[in-house]
Amino acid sequence: MAGSSYGKIFTVTTWGESHGKSLGAVVDGVPSGVPLCEKDIQKFLDRRKPGQNQFTTARSEADQCEILSGVFEGVTTGTPIAVVVWNKDQHSKDYNNIKDVFRPGHADYTFHEKFEIRDYRGGGRSSGRETIGRVIGGAIAMKVLAEFGISFTTYVSAIGDYKVNPLKINTSTILDNPLFMPDKDCSEECIPYLEELRKKGDSIGSEVKCIAHNVPVGIGEPVFDKLDANLAKAVVSIGAVKAVEIGAGTLASKLKGSENNPSKENLGGTLGGISSGDEIIVTASFKPTPSIYQPQETTDINGNPVTINIEGRHDPIIGPRAAVVVESMCAMTILDLMMENMSSKISSMKKIY
Amino acid sequence: MAGSSYGKIFTVTTWGESHGKSLGAVVDGVPSGVPLCEKDIQKFLDRRKPGQNQFTTARSEADQCEILSGVFEGVTTGTPIAVVVWNKDQHSKDYNNIKDVFRPGHADYTFHEKFEIRDYRGGGRSSGRETIGRVIGGAIAMKVLAEFGISFTTYVSAIGDYKVNPLKINTSTILDNPLFMPDKDCSEECIPYLEELRKKGDSIGSEVKCIAHNVPVGIGEPVFDKLDANLAKAVVSIGAVKAVEIGAGTLASKLKGSENNPSKENLGGTLGGISSGDEIIVTASFKPTPSIYQPQETTDINGNPVTINIEGRHDPIIGPRAAVVVESMCAMTILDLMMENMSSKISSMKKIY
Amino acid sequence: MAGSSYGKIFTVTTWGESHGKSLGAVVDGVPSGVPLCEKDIQKFLDRRKPGQNQFTTARSEADQCEILSGVFEGVTTGTPIAVVVWNKDQHSKDYNNIKDVFRPGHADYTFHEKFEIRDYRGGGRSSGRETIGRVIGGAIAMKVLAEFGISFTTYVSAIGDYKVNPLKINTSTILDNPLFMPDKDCSEECIPYLEELRKKGDSIGSEVKCIAHNVPVGIGEPVFDKLDANLAKAVVSIGAVKAVEIGAGTLASKLKGSENNPSKENLGGTLGGISSGDEIIVTASFKPTPSIYQPQETTDINGNPVTINIEGRHDPIIGPRAAVVVESMCAMTILDLMMENMSSKISSMKKIY
Amino acid sequence: MAGSSYGKIFTVTTWGESHGKSLGAVVDGVPSGVPLCEKDIQKFLDRRKPGQNQFTTARSEADQCEILSGVFEGVTTGTPIAVVVWNKDQHSKDYNNIKDVFRPGHADYTFHEKFEIRDYRGGGRSSGRETIGRVIGGAIAMKVLAEFGISFTTYVSAIGDYKVNPLKINTSTILDNPLFMPDKDCSEECIPYLEELRKKGDSIGSEVKCIAHNVPVGIGEPVFDKLDANLAKAVVSIGAVKAVEIGAGTLASKLKGSENNPSKENLGGTLGGISSGDEIIVTASFKPTPSIYQPQETTDINGNPVTINIEGRHDPIIGPRAAVVVESMCAMTILDLMMENMSSKISSMKKIY
Repeated sequence: MAGSSYGKIFTVTTWGESHGKSLGAVVDGVPSGVPLCEKDIQKFLDRRKPGQNQFTTARSEADQCEILSGVFEGVTTGTPIAVVVWNKDQHSKDYNNIKDVFRPGHADYTFHEKFEIRDYRGGGRSSGRETIGRVIGGAIAMKVLAEFGISFTTYVSAIGDYKVNPLKINTSTILDNPLFMPDKDCSEECIPYLEELRKKGDSIGSEVKCIAHNVPVGIGEPVFDKLDANLAKAVVSIGAVKAVEIGAGTLASKLKGSENNPSKENLGGTLGGISSGDEIIVTASFKPTPSIYQPQETTDINGNPVTINIEGRHDPIIGPRAAVVVESMCAMTILDLMMENMSSKISSMKKIY
Repeated sequence: MAGSSYGKIFTVTTWGESHGKSLGAVVDGVPSGVPLCEKDIQKFLDRRKPGQNQFTTARSEADQCEILSGVFEGVTTGTPIAVVVWNKDQHSKDYNNIKDVFRPGHADYTFHEKFEIRDYRGGGRSSGRETIGRVIGGAIAMKVLAEFGISFTTYVSAIGDYKVNPLKINTSTILDNPLFMPDKDCSEECIPYLEELRKKGDSIGSEVKCIAHNVPVGIGEPVFDKLDANLAKAVVSIGAVKAVEIGAGTLASKLKGSENNPSKENLGGTLGGISSGDEIIVTASFKPTPSIYQPQETTDINGNPVTINIEGRHDPIIGPRAAVVVESMCAMTILDLMMENMSSKISSMKKIY
Repeated sequence: MAGSSYGKIFTVTTWGESHGKSLGAVVDGVPSGVPLCEKDIQKFLDRRKPGQNQFTTARSEADQCEILSGVFEGVTTGTPIAVVVWNKDQHSKDYNNIKDVFRPGHADYTFHEKFEIRDYRGGGRSSGRETIGRVIGGAIAMKVLAEFGISFTTYVSAIGDYKVNPLKINTSTILDNPLFMPDKDCSEECIPYLEELRKKGDSIGSEVKCIAHNVPVGIGEPVFDKLDANLAKAVVSIGAVKAVEIGAGTLASKLKGSENNPSKENLGGTLGGISSGDEIIVTASFKPTPSIYQPQETTDINGNPVTINIEGRHDPIIGPRAAVVVESMCAMTILDLMMENMSSKISSMKKIY
Repeated sequence: MAGSSYGKIFTVTTWGESHGKSLGAVVDGVPSGVPLCEKDIQKFLDRRKPGQNQFTTARSEADQCEILSGVFEGVTTGTPIAVVVWNKDQHSKDYNNIKDVFRPGHADYTFHEKFEIRDYRGGGRSSGRETIGRVIGGAIAMKVLAEFGISFTTYVSAIGDYKVNPLKINTSTILDNPLFMPDKDCSEECIPYLEELRKKGDSIGSEVKCIAHNVPVGIGEPVFDKLDANLAKAVVSIGAVKAVEIGAGTLASKLKGSENNPSKENLGGTLGGISSGDEIIVTASFKPTPSIYQPQETTDINGNPVTINIEGRHDPIIGPRAAVVVESMCAMTILDLMMENMSSKISSMKKIY
């Protein structure tokens, strides 16, 4: 599907660039009979909206969504749901000075090599604004999953060396702080650090944890379409993610079998790639925002070395706004595999036919 | 594709269970005109073969492969290549005592819930023997990639707390030690530790690093089919993998932009999910073998708690034999996306039509 | 992909209902570097536009398209191209009287059974307006194909018993008559017949022929993705098509080998499902428009028999406006398989890598 | 999937050439819990077996199948089922004289152009023996469909100008005559005609009709994955099929709406591409066997004109042995879309989760 579609039965196809007319998604394979309105999607888009506080880009976008199809009298009809968000606050001129230069850590160079032509304004298709389409898909997936009591808890679990204390986690406070951390002490310590960093024009990496509750047993297809394999793809497909962990993650490589086996948390909710009925635990590591306000060495499109000074509006940290994107990707993945699992045994098929 | 197929243009479909008649793969989308014989595949299968030394299961399988189709007069014809390996040394009776019990850390419970019936002998389809099909696919992919000068270096980079010293790596020695480590000192220290562990009937986690050389710039499709996203799925789909990292991996979450941007190694060979021409660096974390020779608490198929004593033949560590599987999955992924990339720009299409 | 996406590398995902806000398509996998503007798409949409003459519905829609993404400075960038057409002249009230009744020959009953809820206004998603998305996809495909000198000739070859005379075909006159027939005599005879039919509130079947010129040899994948197989799916997926023929079509069942073999036209441009370099000839048979202005027996959603009198605005014949849809589907299919064929031999791959 | 895989959830991947070691299929996505043994598959393979009578090739192949995986204690486990048939009676030398010549009406030329190298023995991958894999897939699909009371009636409905008389059809006699016709009079008239034809070394076209009974309402996905669209692809993907018709087929182009609407048979069991609960009626037109025993003009691989005299063993007519292949393709298509339909409405999903 050339890269802009995700999923097999429940599918999301996205479009749009940072400085184009609009961004959006076509969500197909949504079961009919689910109540859905723009507010259901908007509340998720608001979690990734720019301009919310001092740690997000100053670009002012309301990012209001509009449903174009697939919903009739407030209910899904089973036909594709197209949703659009119109770009409004493009400052395209900010990017004129970098149109022939490759920003370090960005996709400028690779897009140039792959496509020869690129919309350089704000990164074009490789911009973080691309995730609007993912959140649209995720919001609709979560609306369907809610019909089965499935929900998610997602938060920023670490920023640089500041790590959330597992004993102090209060998930009801996640949305109360600009960093979307569930540990008030940690976020309060982290805020002045980030202020300092921002003054220096630097950025920092972060970690997001997403926990899925009440996923039924049996989801995920052996061999290649394991639940955790598809979650890994889903999460790493988000720009700037450099690692994904299931349960114990990298720590599992250090454990003995006698230590690892008894812990359900270490497994992260899957056995043999199939959901076990326990909480599914996924952790994503985000690199620091590559756009920093310091002179950097790079090359231009003719291969000449140049020093670049990035302008434009950028977040100093990716995790907080990306948390809802991680959640969205996990939701889409789980729902799609739930659909595929429906025909796994003849006794299930006989409940329907 | 119900989970047993991988890839979009270059595709691998596998079959087989631990104690069934045979395991194998159908590899489709292989370009015509590539020299291929059984020896090309066998050398990769030998790297994952059991019974090689004291750290692999005692099951004695030659795992000789046989090409059934798709090759004519020593050259690929562009039609599907079926390759089979016959099971020979099944000790199915070893498993009679566990047919109604769920082994901890294994897929017994989830397969039972998903399918109601399962081939419990040696884990059936969820056995590590399933990876024979992956290595067949990977061997053929690597044969094609070699035509473009693309090669791989893959090794065990850590076992428990024993980590390879980056300054001591000598990749020419990887196959010289039973642990497939590139650092002689590290493997020599590790061996007695593993002997000790095995006597206690315990197992240990491990880490595998795979580096792809000479991958051309431009491979990977934005947005969802990024090269690193597909590599993440490929690697996590291998049983027992709990984390996958690209470049700096989890460490990226701790770095500042000013620290992270200048290092090519941190990026791991992709920018915006598209290959940058640098080495692609993927790290997989394996959990310890769940089969340990110690009494463990679990449940049976009626939900009753039972104490299980696992018999059968199992490796105390997964990484060494799995290294070639990681390499295979990466090779299949890169080749498939190279094919898809061929139509990314009209100037490329005009080279062919 | 839940039915609203078509293609594997060059993919088209459509959305929209007859009386919703808009219809459109996301076209992904378009190679970068192709000049494209709205006019390129509009000229194809105009061929299926309603309200053109006495034989098309009176619904007045300009069907102006708007490109939302994927084009930068007049050239495709390789990223998804979203194109939207806004519905303007909905007369939704026309349909209130049929919301609980199943129109004969329409998808009302099957949508009701499949989805329980449906947008009954103008047939909702099952309306012929759905083909707007197909024509968008086809127009973009044809723009790419034109770069390789590939073009199409498509016309109405029969209406009821009125058949175009092969000896009188002048393809330059196709767009000169409201029936899109290439034989002036035939269309002139047919027009009074259709006038008569329309007065009686009846409709009539038709046949559309599509010929692709200059398709290179080698397009189509054995076994299941043969070029003719994919063309068959493409064409039959258009509403109201009841048959598709390649070359000699049904006539082939009556011929001897000694008669059939020598004729290139009989083969229709494929051998073993792979293009032979000759003209590809596809014929589609359309059933008569099911909406007729005569009382008809049917059932309502409670299963009770009722007599229905259809109102609204409908074409008495489907072929003329559907010709461009057939052409679009063929274009999308050929381009997609051309892309897949690029990696069929190692010598081709070496032209690019 | 590079052409050798079919289906989305229920998938069939085939391999093998006419004169290679074996042919076979991997059938994935089969629900667990279905009784299955080799006999279930063999009875379908026997219907396409060569050497049955004077109208099939003299090649003597028992075509015994062997299940390699996916069945445990006589029941499907939900894992991929690999089935193999070993080639035994290859007379490869028969083909030495044509290795550099393109047989008219065969895929020799197009395979040569597409792949440069080809297994010319017996047509290699483009041989009719490729359909063994389809029948394996179809047999398993039909075993699953039988659990829901779905069955098929398939027969040869015409050979050249000999057409079955609808009033004389007795479907219980289909397998009683070598032509698989359900009208005894027609087959008896046809047999001497075919004898005559065979003596002249000629061949003749044919028509196969396949009727699916008891398919539930609601199967098929709008827009592109309509049931009839997928059936069309399935059937045209069979070698030598030049046309596919649903219900009235090409006749629909000649009918008025007032004539066509009242007939369920004309619709062929679908409305808007979704099954209506009525019988699904599919008709396939086969061209005459291209291998005839008469001198024919063609070209060799250097482009020089040559006269070819075909040797080897060939059927003078394709329909009878292909009937079970048509049925198999229809069965696979219906089952796959039945699986996809399971998540079409939230009320269905709630029956399972």
